Amino acid sequence: MADKSTIVLFSGDLDKAIAAFIIANGAAAYDHEVTIFFTFWGLNVLRKDKAVKTNKGLLEKAFGWMMPRGAKKLGLSKLNVGGLGPQMIKHVMKKHNALSLPQLIELAKEQGVKLVACTMTMDLLGLKQEELIDDLEYAGVAAYLGDASNGKVNLFI
Amino acid sequence: MADKSTIVLFSGDLDKAIAAFIIANGAAAYDHEVTIFFTFWGLNVLRKDKAVKTNKGLLEKAFGWMMPRGAKKLGLSKLNVGGLGPQMIKHVMKKHNALSLPQLIELAKEQGVKLVACTMTMDLLGLKQEELIDDLEYAGVAAYLGDASNGKVNLFI
Amino acid sequence: MADKSTIVLFSGDLDKAIAAFIIANGAAAYDHEVTIFFTFWGLNVLRKDKAVKTNKGLLEKAFGWMMPRGAKKLGLSKLNVGGLGPQMIKHVMKKHNALSLPQLIELAKEQGVKLVACTMTMDLLGLKQEELIDDLEYAGVAAYLGDASNGKVNLFI
Repeated sequence: MADKSTIVLFSGDLDKAIAAFIIANGAAAYDHEVTIFFTFWGLNVLRKDKAVKTNKGLLEKAFGWMMPRGAKKLGLSKLNVGGLGPQMIKHVMKKHNALSLPQLIELAKEQGVKLVACTMTMDLLGLKQEELIDDLEYAGVAAYLGDASNGKVNLFI
Repeated sequence: MADKSTIVLFSGDLDKAIAAFIIANGAAAYDHEVTIFFTFWGLNVLRKDKAVKTNKGLLEKAFGWMMPRGAKKLGLSKLNVGGLGPQMIKHVMKKHNALSLPQLIELAKEQGVKLVACTMTMDLLGLKQEELIDDLEYAGVAAYLGDASNGKVNLFI
Repeated sequence: MADKSTIVLFSGDLDKAIAAFIIANGAAAYDHEVTIFFTFWGLNVLRKDKAVKTNKGLLEKAFGWMMPRGAKKLGLSKLNVGGLGPQMIKHVMKKHNALSLPQLIELAKEQGVKLVACTMTMDLLGLKQEELIDDLEYAGVAAYLGDASNGKVNLFI
């Protein structure tokens, strides 16, 4: 039976999301069954970059405005410098032929990494399925624990 | 023998503390023996909300003043906006009938989740046992490693 | 066979680095084979405190200037207060005879904790081997996953 690995991606920071996907893609390349469970700010990694019309309350709209819209808009956990840091990181990644975050996400999908959006925090932050990218699963903490209980490597990022 | 799970709660952010307790309560519901080990800023989650008279040096007093006093006073890791963010999160949690952090802590106690305060960082930050909520255990890194070595899911939050 | 434990140290914050080394040294004292894998900002923990002449592009130089130069220069994840917080923490650690971060790093080396610098993020941030302290190993995510797949306690800090 294949080894399992799970990552809870709680953070919506570009640098942490990159780290999560590099580990996930690495584990998938070693034939681990890998799940990334996106919760809280991590859900922003999965947002479509264009606004989607939805029927929301004011607070949910406010969260929607204040949070970054997808993998191309994320800030850094350090040295963000008003958006300069992410540009610097993206520049050096391109220079070194490293995959960008959107490419890492595509690779993860191709390798069968299971991308799970936490439905409870989607409700809290007012995020709807139609605002998130395709090919996701939707589940709660019970599904996460089911995977993690059999996981070899379980990380919270 | 029951599965074991451990969480090191290093963070004193409301959002991360909520995530930690949701995972811990979920694991306890699946009959895992769960330990949350509170260290550094995570100890602030356990502070009583009223000041307790203690005999402390000036530096320890300064830490006491600067750090949030308990689960109701914590900030967010993102979108804190001077305390507006935590109010927004508490509001949407109430609206969705999600348990508040104080309720999640009570539920954890009822389910037998072991709440352990790290004595070494208590010393460093000048926190006394009488300043923390009831029903805690007090231990160091050795006790944590004893639990984690047999843990199925070990997270650092 | 000895138990294995791994820590990914992604953070370059003093408080998180201290937590990582306390856990690593504790696990080593229990005869675990311990690896700390330093990536992204965590690499700053390993920088020499004196500038080393290297041949770098402008962006890599900029990262070098903006990031803290070694274990003595790190900030706190909370209560940094422009560098006051780290001084307070160092003061109380000394008062309580706790080992400083540079001492914790030395102890880790003496106990045979494997300190691995992530070569991919070294490239991105423009850090050269001669800028980092001695006795390190250099590897990528594959080496990390090899260790973590056999790890009892795997943390991301």
